[in-house]
Amino acid sequence: MPSASASRKSQEKPREIMDAAEDYAKERYGISSMIQSQEKPDRVLVRVRDLTIQKADEVVWVRARVHTSRAKGKQCFLVLRQQQFNVQALVAVGDHASKQMVKFAANINKESIVDVEGVVRKVNQKIGSCTQQDVELHVQKTSTSQAVFRLQSGICHLFRETLINKGFVEIQTPKIISAASEGGANVFTVSYFKNNAYLAQSPQLYKQMCICADFEKVFSIGPVFRAEDSNTHRHLTEFVGLDIEMAFNYHYHEVMEEIADTMVQIFKGLQERFQTEIQTVNKQFPCEPFKFLEPTLRLEYCEALAMLREAGVEMGDEDDLSTPNEKLLGHLVKEKYDTDFYILDKYPLAVRPFYTMPDPRNPKQSNSYDMFMRGEEILSGAQRIHDPQLLTERALHHGIDLEKIKAYIDSFRFGAPPHAGGGIGLERVTMLFLGLHNVRQTSMFPRDPKRLTP
Amino acid sequence: MPSASASRKSQEKPREIMDAAEDYAKERYGISSMIQSQEKPDRVLVRVRDLTIQKADEVVWVRARVHTSRAKGKQCFLVLRQQQFNVQALVAVGDHASKQMVKFAANINKESIVDVEGVVRKVNQKIGSCTQQDVELHVQKTSTSQAVFRLQSGICHLFRETLINKGFVEIQTPKIISAASEGGANVFTVSYFKNNAYLAQSPQLYKQMCICADFEKVFSIGPVFRAEDSNTHRHLTEFVGLDIEMAFNYHYHEVMEEIADTMVQIFKGLQERFQTEIQTVNKQFPCEPFKFLEPTLRLEYCEALAMLREAGVEMGDEDDLSTPNEKLLGHLVKEKYDTDFYILDKYPLAVRPFYTMPDPRNPKQSNSYDMFMRGEEILSGAQRIHDPQLLTERALHHGIDLEKIKAYIDSFRFGAPPHAGGGIGLERVTMLFLGLHNVRQTSMFPRDPKRLTP
Repeated sequence: MPSASASRKSQEKPREIMDAAEDYAKERYGISSMIQSQEKPDRVLVRVRDLTIQKADEVVWVRARVHTSRAKGKQCFLVLRQQQFNVQALVAVGDHASKQMVKFAANINKESIVDVEGVVRKVNQKIGSCTQQDVELHVQKTSTSQAVFRLQSGICHLFRETLINKGFVEIQTPKIISAASEGGANVFTVSYFKNNAYLAQSPQLYKQMCICADFEKVFSIGPVFRAEDSNTHRHLTEFVGLDIEMAFNYHYHEVMEEIADTMVQIFKGLQERFQTEIQTVNKQFPCEPFKFLEPTLRLEYCEALAMLREAGVEMGDEDDLSTPNEKLLGHLVKEKYDTDFYILDKYPLAVRPFYTMPDPRNPKQSNSYDMFMRGEEILSGAQRIHDPQLLTERALHHGIDLEKIKAYIDSFRFGAPPHAGGGIGLERVTMLFLGLHNVRQTSMFPRDPKRLTP
Repeated sequence: MPSASASRKSQEKPREIMDAAEDYAKERYGISSMIQSQEKPDRVLVRVRDLTIQKADEVVWVRARVHTSRAKGKQCFLVLRQQQFNVQALVAVGDHASKQMVKFAANINKESIVDVEGVVRKVNQKIGSCTQQDVELHVQKTSTSQAVFRLQSGICHLFRETLINKGFVEIQTPKIISAASEGGANVFTVSYFKNNAYLAQSPQLYKQMCICADFEKVFSIGPVFRAEDSNTHRHLTEFVGLDIEMAFNYHYHEVMEEIADTMVQIFKGLQERFQTEIQTVNKQFPCEPFKFLEPTLRLEYCEALAMLREAGVEMGDEDDLSTPNEKLLGHLVKEKYDTDFYILDKYPLAVRPFYTMPDPRNPKQSNSYDMFMRGEEILSGAQRIHDPQLLTERALHHGIDLEKIKAYIDSFRFGAPPHAGGGIGLERVTMLFLGLHNVRQTSMFPRDPKRLTP
């Protein structure tokens, strides 16, 4: 290693005192000064992942973290980490490194950031086996969290890319609102100058207003707030909602199929572009690859009930699915159709919100659907009632105070096209695609009733 | 017009009673039943914008809003609107339409949504001049608000597209936080179960934590909350922040130039892909086309001071720029360099937040920059102090209570690479690119101290 320097570290500095008189390599290492943008040196930093056999015998500069460090006599092995990529570096007493320099390297704290110059050397045996005298760099390990959040970034990207290609417009909806959106339960209150305001539980009203303003196809990505005191593996008080709303011509299936196709494009894009990340996560959390059909399997609620009853579950026609029954249904569907993703259509009207369009063919059913990944709900959607008179009737039927939803009902009075939509929970999609078991693994800074930091 | 139907409207129904006995066209019009997704008819709805000369003599179905309506003897002219596009439709007594049908058409309320079938006919003179007997559709007008928000959607898309191509990762940062981020002023308080929490004034801490976690290049798009009682043309209490943070090798200019190039890619993309929208807005709000240089002009603060002083402004070396002086500077820069976009670098240390890296060459300057569009600030950024000791010194110098920012300082204790970033206000970029004069025109649902609805 011709030269090495550890950047100014925070916790401790190496305490060993070097005998400078004897140190023939003293210019080759040390604590570098803090980078304050003093100069723009003509030096290229090579990425750890680019340290492959093609670079053999090249001299390169690398900036990385010290992942592990192991000193052994006259040599010190460092594993240097950069995002998902690791490489082994050897500092050994010889022409380029002195005894003091090896000692210095051995004393660098883990997680310190170091700048290292070295020669890339081909090794005969992978991992741990190295030639002497020069640095040897070969990728050997990766890290899981980076991969999860890179894949999550990919979900957002694919969601937008697909929808923009389909002619959707991205909208920004307010999070501070003057009245609780869906009746008032589970809403956070904000002090707003001299009054109170609330945090939006969903962008739904605003998506629908954009449809009434003839945007026709809109989507939004943003935080959604739920003041639910739920402490489960899949609930957060703040999560990221991917929301879609779309006017249709004659049948809400036009929208439902567009949403399902968007999910399929996301799955395909992830499997094509994020294979490294998927494999990284799988190493630590093994899981079957995510399977889906094209076009997406659509089951009606009554079909699902029949499957569950055949499996011994007792349920009434208008009962909602419990979480365990959703899971069981997911297993039955996987067995029968070999897919981890499907649509459950035509929910009982009784278990859906008041603004859900009733099914004209069957008054006990509704034009609503959920979508499932590995047996867990990731999207809930429906055709919305766009007629203020029917909306009023349904609200009264649900015992809702009309005064509280007046603005919502009024927004349809200037004429609204038929429309449908749905909302997706980003953290759940990431979790279920990767086969993880807690949304806290897929939220960088999770929020729940007991956690507000960091 | 062989057939026409107005969908069920909300406010009023046409009150005229038709004499059905004499109406030979009675099957050709009427109030259609509410679309509850009963059927999936084999009918294609043509987009208004696609009604060009190429479609002449074709029979098409169109769903649009009634923009204006004018009855004149035996005929009725409707202007049908779909997003930015308008077309004139004629209903005239003849083989396909009866007297009653014309009357029905004349009675349709403005803003109603109608389904119309008609023949596309070429006209001899543009606008208002039509042949008889059949529908004549030719695009003649567009609408402004649609164009503004379509362009805004484009800004978000170009921002992401550019950054993802540059290797950035999109992150999601929490909006509910446990402590006020920047000292506690101007922060909204939220009731969080039995405690209080706050709304994030910026994602900065979280962006920086991602840099410490070696993501290297991150961006986020999301709401930012400021409890400022400012009632100006450019302040909102909730706006959309486009945020960037990036580790660099040797000089913060690496980051500053990456951000400036991102802005340039956005400007280019808008001018290439959104010309229709820009022209639509310009018709109502005339404005010079937005000009920019490549690479972006960079001025140092001291150069700007010299220009202002030459123009008669009295300012001390360490004074901040007032809003009128920023505007004036914008004019001077435009005159001298012919650009509406530039970077102002090397702000006085005294006017920047405590976490700003001092300039090692000049203790009164800092490694910080603002970016301007048409003389108004749209981005504020800097190299951040990544060393906890220096950060502590600077916080003490600013009289900040160390206890309140302990978590922030601690996040750098495991070693942080040098990094810089910045935050952009989306509504301001849209406003200034289009030469509009109030952010309320570029926020669909603006929030200010006096406005919380809709």
